[in-house]
Amino acid sequence: MNPAPSFTEAERKAVYRVIAERRDVRRGFLNAPLPDDLIGRLLAAAHSAPSVGLMQPSRFIVVRDAGIREAVHQIFEAANRRALDNYNGEQAERYSRLKLEGILEAPQNLCVLCDRENERGHQLGRQTMPETAVYSTVCAIQNFWLAARSEGVGVGWVSILDPVKLRKVLNIPSHLMLVAYLCFGYVEGFASEPDLERFGWERRIDLKTVISYDRYSEECAP
Amino acid sequence: MNPAPSFTEAERKAVYRVIAERRDVRRGFLNAPLPDDLIGRLLAAAHSAPSVGLMQPSRFIVVRDAGIREAVHQIFEAANRRALDNYNGEQAERYSRLKLEGILEAPQNLCVLCDRENERGHQLGRQTMPETAVYSTVCAIQNFWLAARSEGVGVGWVSILDPVKLRKVLNIPSHLMLVAYLCFGYVEGFASEPDLERFGWERRIDLKTVISYDRYSEECAP
Repeated sequence: MNPAPSFTEAERKAVYRVIAERRDVRRGFLNAPLPDDLIGRLLAAAHSAPSVGLMQPSRFIVVRDAGIREAVHQIFEAANRRALDNYNGEQAERYSRLKLEGILEAPQNLCVLCDRENERGHQLGRQTMPETAVYSTVCAIQNFWLAARSEGVGVGWVSILDPVKLRKVLNIPSHLMLVAYLCFGYVEGFASEPDLERFGWERRIDLKTVISYDRYSEECAP
Repeated sequence: MNPAPSFTEAERKAVYRVIAERRDVRRGFLNAPLPDDLIGRLLAAAHSAPSVGLMQPSRFIVVRDAGIREAVHQIFEAANRRALDNYNGEQAERYSRLKLEGILEAPQNLCVLCDRENERGHQLGRQTMPETAVYSTVCAIQNFWLAARSEGVGVGWVSILDPVKLRKVLNIPSHLMLVAYLCFGYVEGFASEPDLERFGWERRIDLKTVISYDRYSEECAP
C-alpha cells in the first residue's frame, strides 16, 4: 500500500467549507447550461462514492430536454397541490410561499437510480443489511452535491413527485429503484442559511442533542 | 441573501481530492483514541448534511467502551460465518481472506440512526417519497466520511451485522431506524485503490456505462 499524503490545513478547511456552505437550491438558477466536461466531473465524483461490495449500483439520467422537464414539472405541480392540502391556516400560507423546485429554471436535471439487483459485488455486505445498496447511491448523491458546490453549481433535491408518473416519463425499467430527482445549474449565489430556516418553516437543532455515548441515551431526543 | 464567495481553484481541488481519496478502511487502525474535539468536528460535519424538510433526523452513538465493541464484534463474527457459507471454492477462499471490519482495532465506532417518525420538518417533502428521511441520514454519513478523510481518519462501514442483535446491545429504541455501524480512527495510511479491488473481489466500472441522457437508455447497463 502506498499511503496517500495527508491533507494540508488549507485543504482540510476547504473540505469543511464545502460541507458547511452546501445548500439545497431551488431559486436563482442562471439560464446558462453547464458544459459537458463540468457535468462529467460532477458525475465522476458521484461515481467514486463508496458502494457496498464495490457494486457501484448508481445510474444517472441527465435531463436537459425542455419537454421532459416540463412533464416532470407538471408531476411536481400536482403533487405539491396535494401536499398543500395537508396544511391549514398560517402553515398552509407559509408552505405555499416556499419555492420547492427549480426543474424548469435549471437548464439541467438529474435523475438518480439504483440497480440494487445487480450481481456486482457478489452480495458482499448485503446479506444482513441489503438496504446498503441504495445507501451507496445516496452517498453518490452527496458527493455530487458537494462537488457541485465547489464549482458554483447549485443542487436542489425534489422529492415532491409521484414516483410512478416520473418513472413513466423517464422510461425507467422496473428493476431499477428511483432514488432521487435533482435540479442543478449555475446560480446567482448560495444563501448562508437553509431556505427552510430563512423562510420560517423549521429551525436547525443543536448538535449536542443528537449524540449519545456507548449506548443510546433517552436524553438524545431533540 | 448574501451570496457566499466562490471557491478558489485550490479549494475546488481539495474537494475533488477528498472525494477521490476517501476509502472504506478496515485495517491499519492506530491504537490512539481520537480527541473529543476532533470527533465533535466530524459529527458537526455529519449534522450539517441536507435533510428533507430540515428535519435533521440523524442520531449518533459514539461507541468507545471496549466491552460493547467486543459484543458488536461477536455479532459480526457470527454474521460473517453465515455469509461465508454462501460462497464456494475459490470465491469462498477469497472472501475469507478479506478484512471486513475494524471494530476492535479502531478505538471508537459510530452507530448512526434515523428518527424518521420525528415531526420536525412537518412532513415537507416526505408525502410522496417518505424514504427521503433515511436518505438524509446517509448524506450525513458521507459528510462524516469525507471530513474524516481530510483529518487522516479512516472510516469503515460494517454491514455484516444482525441488526436485531446490534439494536439490543446498543439499547436502540424501536422508533429509531438503524442505518449504519462504522469503525473509525487514525490509520497508518490510505490505499490508492479500494480494498475489494486490491484483493481481487471486484473491479470498478467505467463512468460512461452508468449515464443516460434525457430518458433511461438500455445501453446504460454495465
